[in-house]
Amino acid sequence: MARINEHYRKLAAGYPFPEIGRRVKAFAEANPKADVIRLGIGDVTLPLAPAIVEALQRAAAEMGTPAGMHGYAPEQGYDFLIDAIREGDYAPRGIALERDEIFVSDGSKQDSGNIQEIFAQDQRILVTDPVYPVYVDTNVMAGRTGAIDERGCYAGIVYLPATEANGFVPDPPDAPADVAYLCSPNNPTGAVATREQLARWVAWARAHDAVLIFDAAYDAYIQDPALPRSIYEIEGARACAIEMRSYSKRAGFTGLRCAYTVVPRELTGTTAAGERVPLRELWARRVSTKFNGVPYPVQRAAEAVHGPEGRKQTAEQVAYYMENARRLREGLRGAGFRVFGGEHAPYIWMRVPAGLTSWGFFDELLAKAHVVGTPGAGFGPSGEGYLRLSAFNDRARVDEAIERIRRAFAG
Amino acid sequence: MARINEHYRKLAAGYPFPEIGRRVKAFAEANPKADVIRLGIGDVTLPLAPAIVEALQRAAAEMGTPAGMHGYAPEQGYDFLIDAIREGDYAPRGIALERDEIFVSDGSKQDSGNIQEIFAQDQRILVTDPVYPVYVDTNVMAGRTGAIDERGCYAGIVYLPATEANGFVPDPPDAPADVAYLCSPNNPTGAVATREQLARWVAWARAHDAVLIFDAAYDAYIQDPALPRSIYEIEGARACAIEMRSYSKRAGFTGLRCAYTVVPRELTGTTAAGERVPLRELWARRVSTKFNGVPYPVQRAAEAVHGPEGRKQTAEQVAYYMENARRLREGLRGAGFRVFGGEHAPYIWMRVPAGLTSWGFFDELLAKAHVVGTPGAGFGPSGEGYLRLSAFNDRARVDEAIERIRRAFAG
Repeated sequence: MARINEHYRKLAAGYPFPEIGRRVKAFAEANPKADVIRLGIGDVTLPLAPAIVEALQRAAAEMGTPAGMHGYAPEQGYDFLIDAIREGDYAPRGIALERDEIFVSDGSKQDSGNIQEIFAQDQRILVTDPVYPVYVDTNVMAGRTGAIDERGCYAGIVYLPATEANGFVPDPPDAPADVAYLCSPNNPTGAVATREQLARWVAWARAHDAVLIFDAAYDAYIQDPALPRSIYEIEGARACAIEMRSYSKRAGFTGLRCAYTVVPRELTGTTAAGERVPLRELWARRVSTKFNGVPYPVQRAAEAVHGPEGRKQTAEQVAYYMENARRLREGLRGAGFRVFGGEHAPYIWMRVPAGLTSWGFFDELLAKAHVVGTPGAGFGPSGEGYLRLSAFNDRARVDEAIERIRRAFAG
Repeated sequence: MARINEHYRKLAAGYPFPEIGRRVKAFAEANPKADVIRLGIGDVTLPLAPAIVEALQRAAAEMGTPAGMHGYAPEQGYDFLIDAIREGDYAPRGIALERDEIFVSDGSKQDSGNIQEIFAQDQRILVTDPVYPVYVDTNVMAGRTGAIDERGCYAGIVYLPATEANGFVPDPPDAPADVAYLCSPNNPTGAVATREQLARWVAWARAHDAVLIFDAAYDAYIQDPALPRSIYEIEGARACAIEMRSYSKRAGFTGLRCAYTVVPRELTGTTAAGERVPLRELWARRVSTKFNGVPYPVQRAAEAVHGPEGRKQTAEQVAYYMENARRLREGLRGAGFRVFGGEHAPYIWMRVPAGLTSWGFFDELLAKAHVVGTPGAGFGPSGEGYLRLSAFNDRARVDEAIERIRRAFAG
């Protein structure tokens, strides 16, 4: 008799986006003339840069010829892309990676969701709170947690609150954990970790023989060159950290799908008997058994992101979104809100007015300003009291949203 | 302290392809002038059909415009593709599917590897033997098996031998199991199940409340219109079967990545307490948590496979490979070999000469004819004594391979 994986039933509604969708739909049906501005979901809005379109088209044409046809891709990705990553993303920061340490994938969501598979069932998972829900939900589905409590925390997971007091970048705890997920620049708070903060996490991981899963999907939004963009800028990180990066936000690939994960050769986990096993070998086995590569044209498109034209064009897109973020930050501050993030990340994390929950403010913002945000509570209990606004939108729409919020909540 | 998933260590070398690669490399280095013909791996060789290239290029251009940019795709796929699948693949066979029963994915390898996640940990898994290794390996990695034995069987998995006696399509066993993987047309044997055989499997699944995972990745190679191409042509299958199909072999998408999985609404699994839960809901949750959609240009390319030009062009490619299969079948028979498959599948399953193992014959074939096949033993213990040859190659190379085998093994 086929029995289901009952761990799935522990999952809360999960992602706030379906509930947001329902509320926006209900509002739009009740107010058919309302012009709703969506700053909720973090999806890019600018078209693909010309260099990327060209690369896609060239690769498609190539595959239509006998000499240019490409079947199954190499399991970890084509060397042309892996080398572009090594030379474009790492060498300039003084980091040398081997080819076989880089795994090209179809998304950081997938990678950050799948990475837990290579760890033992009884691992203690640590997350900062609020958190990208995929880290937590995939561990729930794998059976590593107990039930969810009334605050929205799963038993067995260590939650570290990211608060105004710690600048939304919590320090490592005194207690040990086995696998810790860190995201910087952070989704949803927009906070970015400094070199010193990351050094404390690396020291903690080394001390407890823990593994850091470092999600740098938003690294392209870091404006200050002194801030670390890779965990491997921290000494000792190669022995304790896996890093994930994505083309989604840096180059508009949310609809093209390309990312990569770095697993350094010297990073190990242990068996119950105490034997050390390179995690790279386990991840390579997972990838070769459960994945079949990123489409050839998409790998060529990602390669183009690293070319001179692609670099310039995608940097302009990032700058466009960051100017949106600046306007949101300053506009909302001018309207009397407490606003965080948006300096090295495309997300604004705003305090909701006193007396309102984050969902309550979501509803007011929609009703009074016809603007959609994402309630902080959707990302975890410490997100209560905040709302995330995304800078991914048209400039004029962002300006209009700011003006409407100003009018609606003035005074 | 980070501990590894030790179930990975139960995995045998797994896929025969890395070992084949090593042996071919060694041979080529020792015989640098040898012209090796590769009929081992099942990868397509013809270029993408013009209609597919056009669709890719059009979609790429579209994404370069503000109005045509596509970000995150709908979780289960775009309706334009889902409707093309319903109307192109199912309606002509008398099968009505709802949109939300179809999940567009980046490959049947991924889908057939991931599907086990929605089932309970203690499920009894059934496979036919020889078998596509992904079905087995992903259950090993998930911890559903014990160790592998000297025959190459994992404790806890039910293996049903596919033999000459049963025409390589075993009937269901008397014993129950919970989840059974079936692949027709079969990889690696090339055998195809008849309507009556599938009806017996559906009856067995209904009787035992088991779920069939029906992998129809090669359905486009079925030549006889009376043979079932979908499990849903069998009455009652909607209540007991999940079906997977792919664009890889039917339209040359091994380097583009598109497939889909069907989970009918009425298909359920049970909780330990006996409650029935639709498997569609679990799979939808998995997809929304761990996947982020197939690239928009690739979904447009898959849509083009269903258009009038795409249908015609891809049918010509399938016919080309099937003529290769016919020549291999007849040529090898003429050379005195016992040969199976290749009538409704792009794979030839040949008996190795008496006194040789399948790896022994692999070595002889390489040494004497400079032809690469895949040893049957690489697919499971019942594959011992057979070798798989793929029809995916250039016609002249196939003819040359046949001639060389004839000469090398004459008499």
